[in-house]
Formats: sequence, C-alpha cells, structure tokens
Amino acid sequence: MKHLWLMAGALMLGLNYSTAAEATTKQPHSEPVTPIQPAKVTEPAKVELGKQLFFDPRLSMSGVISCNTCHNLSLGGTDNLKTSVGHKWRPGPVNSPTVFNSSLSIAQFWDGRAANLQEQAAGPIQADVEMAMPHTLAVDVIRSIPGYGSQFKAIYGDEKITLEKITDAIARFEETLVTPNSRFDQWLLGDDQAITAQELQGYQLFKTHGCVACHNGPALGGTSFQKMGIVAPYKSSSPAQGRVAVTGKDADRFNFKVPTLRNVELTYPYFHDGEAATLAESVAVMGKLQLGRSYSEQEIKDIVAFLHTLTGDRPQIQLPLLPASVDATHRPEPFK
Amino acid sequence: MKHLWLMAGALMLGLNYSTAAEATTKQPHSEPVTPIQPAKVTEPAKVELGKQLFFDPRLSMSGVISCNTCHNLSLGGTDNLKTSVGHKWRPGPVNSPTVFNSSLSIAQFWDGRAANLQEQAAGPIQADVEMAMPHTLAVDVIRSIPGYGSQFKAIYGDEKITLEKITDAIARFEETLVTPNSRFDQWLLGDDQAITAQELQGYQLFKTHGCVACHNGPALGGTSFQKMGIVAPYKSSSPAQGRVAVTGKDADRFNFKVPTLRNVELTYPYFHDGEAATLAESVAVMGKLQLGRSYSEQEIKDIVAFLHTLTGDRPQIQLPLLPASVDATHRPEPFK
Repeated sequence: MKHLWLMAGALMLGLNYSTAAEATTKQPHSEPVTPIQPAKVTEPAKVELGKQLFFDPRLSMSGVISCNTCHNLSLGGTDNLKTSVGHKWRPGPVNSPTVFNSSLSIAQFWDGRAANLQEQAAGPIQADVEMAMPHTLAVDVIRSIPGYGSQFKAIYGDEKITLEKITDAIARFEETLVTPNSRFDQWLLGDDQAITAQELQGYQLFKTHGCVACHNGPALGGTSFQKMGIVAPYKSSSPAQGRVAVTGKDADRFNFKVPTLRNVELTYPYFHDGEAATLAESVAVMGKLQLGRSYSEQEIKDIVAFLHTLTGDRPQIQLPLLPASVDATHRPEPFK
Repeated sequence: MKHLWLMAGALMLGLNYSTAAEATTKQPHSEPVTPIQPAKVTEPAKVELGKQLFFDPRLSMSGVISCNTCHNLSLGGTDNLKTSVGHKWRPGPVNSPTVFNSSLSIAQFWDGRAANLQEQAAGPIQADVEMAMPHTLAVDVIRSIPGYGSQFKAIYGDEKITLEKITDAIARFEETLVTPNSRFDQWLLGDDQAITAQELQGYQLFKTHGCVACHNGPALGGTSFQKMGIVAPYKSSSPAQGRVAVTGKDADRFNFKVPTLRNVELTYPYFHDGEAATLAESVAVMGKLQLGRSYSEQEIKDIVAFLHTLTGDRPQIQLPLLPASVDATHRPEPFK
C-alpha cells in the first residue's frame, strides 16, 4: 500500500520511475542516422478519411486495386514484387517503394517527380499500368457515396469533393505511417543492449565505408538522388532512366532517389528494378557499384545483421469499414 | 456510493439494470427470420492466425491475391464485381459470395460443393482463375516463414504445417465474421422503433409473398438449394450450371444455394452471375422468376427498404501484421 502511495505521488509530480531511472544511465548516440519519431496526429478525422480512401478499391477502374494493393500495410508497405501488378495485369515499370516513412523523403517516386505525398497520391489512380481510373471518374465515384460526402463536409467545411481533397486526406494518413522503436533506434537513444556486437560491427562498416553518405537521416535514405552505378555501370533491363525524366538533364540519367533502409528486411526485392532478391545480394552489388569494394562474406553478414535492426513497429491499423455505394455509383468494369 | 454498492450487488446477482428494464417493455417477435448471434471466440490465437492467412497474398502464385481480395472485409465481404478478377486477370465463373455470416450456410460455394468453410478455403488457393497456387507450394511458403511456424506450433502442438491446419485456421477466423445488431435484428428482439412503417411493410410483403420460404433463418438464406427460375426460366450467359455439377443429377441443373440477404445493401451485384446491378432489379426479377409476380414500383420500394434494415455491424478488425518471409521463402512470380 505504501508502494501505491509512492506511485501516486510520483504520478502527481509528473515523474515516471522507469524513465527517470533510464535517463541517468542512457547516453544517446550522436550519429548520421537519427531515430524515427512517432506520428503526431493533429487531424484524426482527416487521417481516418484518408485511411478509408487508401483502402478503397473503388478508386480503381477495375474495382480491385487500392493503394494498399501495392503498398500493403500488412507487409512492409510494399507488395514484395519486382514490379507491381496493375490494371489488366500490366507490369509496373519500377519496384513499388514502401509507403512506411515515405513522409521523410525529399520527394516521391524513384525519380522524385512528385514533390510530396499529396502530389504522389494522384499518380497511381490514373496511371494505366496501376489503377487506370480517370481522375474525373474517381472523383465522381467518391462524390456518389453519401458516407464519404458527410466526412468531407465535416472535415473541409464544404460538400464539394475534389481530387485535391481526396489526395490531401490520403497524404495525411500516409504521414502517420512511420515505424519508430526499431532496435537500432533503441540503440541510438542509448540502450547499448538493444543490438548485438555483430550488428554494431555491421553498422560501423556501413558508416565507415560510406554507405551512410547516401543512406542517412531518420529514414536512412530519401534525402538525395544518386547515380545507380557510380564506380561501375549498373546493368538492367528496366526501361527506367531515373531523374532525367524529370529534369531533362543528361547528368541525371540513372539518378534515382536513395531508398529508405527502414524495415528493409520486409521490403524485398531491392533496387528500382527489384532485381536484387536478398539483402546479401544488395549489399554485395552496392559495394561494387557504388563504393568499388568487394565485400567478404563476413562483412556482408555483418552489414545484413545491422540492416535487420532497422525493422520498427509497424502501425497498428483498424481495418476501415468503407461507406456503401448507392445505385447511382459508377460500377467498376474490370474486363472491359 | 450507495449507488455503486447497488450496482455491485446487481452484478453479483448476475443482473444487468438496462437489460432488466428492457425486458419488461420488449417482446421479441417470433419470425421465420432469426437474429444473428455475436461470435463466440474460444480459440483466439487460432482466429488471429487465420486472420493473418486470410490477408496473406503469399498464398497466391502472383503474390497479390489474398482471400481478402475477393472477400473484402472493408466492403461487404465481397468484391462487388459481377465475377472476380483472378490470377493473370482471369474472370471467375460466378459472383463471389460474401464471407460475412458464411458459417451459417449448409454448405459453401454457389453449388455447395464444399461441406464447410475449411473445405471451401482450400479451393480458391489452387483454382487457376483465382489464386492459382499449387497446394504444395502454398504450404511450402507458409512453412518457410518462421513467424508462422511458431504460431502453428503453439496452437496445434507440433511444428508440422499442413494444408488442413492452414484451412482450419482460416475457417475458424471466418466463423467470427458475423454481423449482428442490424436494425431488423433489433426489431426481432422487440425494439419496435428500430424499423420504419415502410420497412415493416416491406418485410410483410417479403414474408407473405413467399420470399421467406427460401430466405429464412438467421442468414435469410444459405439453408437450401433452389432452382434459379422456377416459374419462368432465367436467361444467363454464365456457364454455371449449379448443383448438378456436384450431384450429377439433371434435376439439380440451375439449382443454386440460396444466398444470404444479410448486408445485401453492401453485396451488390446480385445473383450467381452478378447480372442484377441493384436491389430493385433483383426484387423484380425474383418476383417474376420465382414467384410469378409482377411487383409494383411501390412494392419494390417497400421490399428494398426492408432489405436495407439487414445491414449489421461488420466486425472491427485490426489489420494483421504478417510475419516476414526469409531469403529461402519462394518468391511470387506474377508475370511468369
């Protein structure tokens, strides 16, 4: 009982025993990689609306493809395919990047052609190798559903549903899809027991050999565009040319946004063309092409061990129950 | 404080104030339709495992189709397509029935070829117009994933993962997918304010005209096989022949399992071929073909109003976070 009173006293003083105790022993590590911060949800109704839209296959011409199809939140925020399966089983041109922690990138898509998540969200809806849904029709479908209308009105203040509002809501939901609390983040925050000696050794190699020059920041990537194949050319059958498609500058040919390494254990296969099946293969190829190094088997094992410490807490998501279509709602036509 | 003691006393006596109060005013209606009972979960770990498998696209050859693709729990437990989109965009032969309340059916599939949910679950995994995954390969994939192995061991007592255990877990999850508490169920339980006069009128027509002869029980269907086109033949371009495919008896040609009408507002389009787009159209066709009646516009409106009272509480589901594949896990090949 005395213990309980002490607890109550600590609570009243705003103290927390374990935190106070840890603060005296833990020294955060200052590194070029920084911890992921938990999401701060300031507009929960908009995030909920965005979640519904993210899961809604009625945004696709076929009625079966949603954002979640290629950015599967039950997996690593990707589809784990070399390139995605789109409308009428068309193959996508590049590997689907993970939606987890995507808000931490300087731009969206491998070539950075969307400045932010809202701009990004509009792309796959209309792309004929993805959801293949004309924007006007997508907006019409959402407008026809009363259970969406009431939400848009409550959130945006008027009933007019637009593509901009749809993509704004999706983007606000996607911003919540961060994965804090990986073992590596625990280590960064000062828990020296959170990673093993081998994993730490892998990080030291990762840092001292220059991987971290591109894979840095909270997402270990997403902060710059870099040439795929600096020391030696990368051979690929992929038609993707990278950032030159956006800038028109020849110097940007084969420049791609550096992908995040957060949850990289879950986001196989790797590279913009998905041609690297495993982390070991990716590390070996990156070493040769970007750093001019031939990694030993042991070095690869150590680095891969480190990469496994980057798996964070995936968001716990309540599956949305989507509002019902009505008779007037346009019906999908997958086989037309 | 006295009130609290009274509450505690009532709890000890097994009483519940509100229920006791309601019981004095509510008289349940005795009808050929009965309320849906909430799910009783006796094996939560198995249900959780089954949920993961239900959402896992790695059970398909392409890596993109899961049970949830065609039985979408964000929608009405269906895909809302005439017929489903399967592997390589192949069209399914019949309309996907809802998974909600499917445990209340005498058999599974439109032709009843599976005796129960466990038997059913094995079908679409291997069907080449659905997930197109040989059972042996599906089992190999699940076996290769350590995060599944530990669950199977804890639940089934040994490590050996089999198709039977996979489909058992999926079936146990599906049994929890019931939708109690529709407004019509509230009315059945004695709340006369739960439905409007028009909705009650619709139910009276539904009952007295004979719809209820087939659409009865807790699911308003699923209790028998009936000929599609009793009074007049049903014309369809669908190749489905119904129960004759199971029994081989010519008398079973065009006999289909009577579909549930629970949540029918959400499970459009209708009939085994998905050819009826709206409830109004379905009621008109059913009236003519099964009952020899030409319903007036008003009668159709009344019956459709009643059908809308059958939308229950869809289960609140936490999206599963699927265990990670490892390097040795077979990789899907959607375009092979």
